[in-house]
Amino acid sequence: MSNDTETAIQSIEWRDDHVRILDQTYLPNREVYSDIRDVGRMWEAIKKLRIRGAPAIGIAASYGFYLGIKELPENTFQSFWVEVERVAEYLESARPTAINLKWALDRIKTTIQAHKDKDISEIKEIVLKTAKTIHDEDKRICKKIGENGIEIVKKKAQILTHCNTGSLATGQYGTALSVIFHAHQNGNDIHVWVDETRPLLQGARLTSWELMNAEIPMKLITDSTAGSLMRRGEVDIVIVGTDRVAANGDTANKIGTYPLAVLAKENDIPFYVAVPLSTIDMELENGDNIPIEEREGDEISSFNGSQVAPKKVETYNPAFDVTPHKYVTAFITEKGIIEPPFDKNFEKLFE
Amino acid sequence: MSNDTETAIQSIEWRDDHVRILDQTYLPNREVYSDIRDVGRMWEAIKKLRIRGAPAIGIAASYGFYLGIKELPENTFQSFWVEVERVAEYLESARPTAINLKWALDRIKTTIQAHKDKDISEIKEIVLKTAKTIHDEDKRICKKIGENGIEIVKKKAQILTHCNTGSLATGQYGTALSVIFHAHQNGNDIHVWVDETRPLLQGARLTSWELMNAEIPMKLITDSTAGSLMRRGEVDIVIVGTDRVAANGDTANKIGTYPLAVLAKENDIPFYVAVPLSTIDMELENGDNIPIEEREGDEISSFNGSQVAPKKVETYNPAFDVTPHKYVTAFITEKGIIEPPFDKNFEKLFE
Repeated sequence: MSNDTETAIQSIEWRDDHVRILDQTYLPNREVYSDIRDVGRMWEAIKKLRIRGAPAIGIAASYGFYLGIKELPENTFQSFWVEVERVAEYLESARPTAINLKWALDRIKTTIQAHKDKDISEIKEIVLKTAKTIHDEDKRICKKIGENGIEIVKKKAQILTHCNTGSLATGQYGTALSVIFHAHQNGNDIHVWVDETRPLLQGARLTSWELMNAEIPMKLITDSTAGSLMRRGEVDIVIVGTDRVAANGDTANKIGTYPLAVLAKENDIPFYVAVPLSTIDMELENGDNIPIEEREGDEISSFNGSQVAPKKVETYNPAFDVTPHKYVTAFITEKGIIEPPFDKNFEKLFE
Repeated sequence: MSNDTETAIQSIEWRDDHVRILDQTYLPNREVYSDIRDVGRMWEAIKKLRIRGAPAIGIAASYGFYLGIKELPENTFQSFWVEVERVAEYLESARPTAINLKWALDRIKTTIQAHKDKDISEIKEIVLKTAKTIHDEDKRICKKIGENGIEIVKKKAQILTHCNTGSLATGQYGTALSVIFHAHQNGNDIHVWVDETRPLLQGARLTSWELMNAEIPMKLITDSTAGSLMRRGEVDIVIVGTDRVAANGDTANKIGTYPLAVLAKENDIPFYVAVPLSTIDMELENGDNIPIEEREGDEISSFNGSQVAPKKVETYNPAFDVTPHKYVTAFITEKGIIEPPFDKNFEKLFE
């Protein structure tokens, strides 16, 4: 990664009156940028994973919120508010697991309420400003996560990661990948094992691309290969991101994370979760009630439009799993490394 | 599966003067049969996984052996034997992990030596007869494994399996899938979770196809989904096949088997390995010295000829992993269920 943050990958950008996203469904073969000018297209972009990653979804939803309200008739606050709630609910329906989506929408709704006595046109500008603030904050938070994470990476380390948690998944730098980028920048001699991350291959397509762009040594593996690497002592730490953490530390993340956590424990390898505080859901006591998105079976049964399994095969395709907190060594946050007991230590964080 | 064994899938068949195989690289979209008339094409078929599965490779190599020697000049045994060794070595080089390949070739070589005083033409006929015997024995053995395995399947059971271990992988019935077929035929109410099995998708392409043909309820999942199903109590037993078992019970099988074994242990789920005795390598003390085949990286970085990861991405693509014996609940063999201690109980088996 360049030291010049201006040249780093921008997964999402506000441009005068619209949002420009790097459409991640075309990566790594093509860099296609897409201009989004209405809330419907933003909903579709989130749903279809054109933009993805918990923090990036929060940012995208914030800008989408503004796109959804900016043309509303400017009469009473009451009628405006009805539409505001409708837009928020619509955007939230795009993907259920990542808490950042709801977190960003709630934050904007709270801001609107706080300014309810202002002109509607003024409130609209405040919404756009809040979206930009959420975006800027995320960049700073991700940088801080990366800097804080350096201490858990040895001078020479083999790191295993899953899915994509880099600049593409956030405002900039990423979460788990931010730790990797910053450790590399710090001069640590690291090598990264990249899980391909079935079914949508975010590891193969996106993480490989980001690490190769940053010239960080890496090897791509199937998700099933992680276990034997751990058993043979070829993994020093596992670092992943998350879509939602419950108040006790139970962690929802891309399907395949729970197996990695169990394998890490079995082989005495530390298992870290990099997470901005906005992804911690203090209203959920534990992971049992985190909604798990189930996606279409053709993500497994076909590839690039060609069938790989028999026609009419039945499938089960959850996008996430939940890792019980007992498998997590520590969380890497913008406020430092959080160790167990997570319930108590999270509470202190939010005081 | 039909009760009429004549109508079951034939992955490999001897026809007068050549071998016919069902080319598994085209499944499930097309049923392409391929006639093999020389040892070079048999080597290629094994190497490219047109025919695959430890027992089926043994059968294919046996017929390939005959194809490799049948045209040899019929002069002295000594010069014939030099060529015999060359053909055996060549076939063995196709795939290193499955012991059945070596086992079948060694058996034929021993048979040739036992008949060294006969005419070369007569010896050639004996080799063909031995290959047919190996094939027939495998069918009987697989049937027996299936029958013996019924006792470990509850009346109502959710079974998880990996890779393909059915008729396609053997002379008939299969190993792990033979247990599933026989339990179903026995009237057990079973449902099978089928791991897609990256990178070559033997689960998605082949196991789904065999189970659907047999009308056994199943769902296809990514390999990463197995863990959360186990955690949520939706898997009662795991049954897999194997490519080589060491004398202490350490088990080499398709990459991803070791993670399943660890996850099964963590969730108190029995983990069974279905295995013909010919796959147990009593000459290897433990699994550390089982040769692990490493395959081309493009199996991961591209799909159906189209690139999915960045060009020039580095990869690591082992085809197998080793599961230490402590994770194995029991082995299901043609001679019954073998429980720990495996070293002692295997020795008794081979007495």
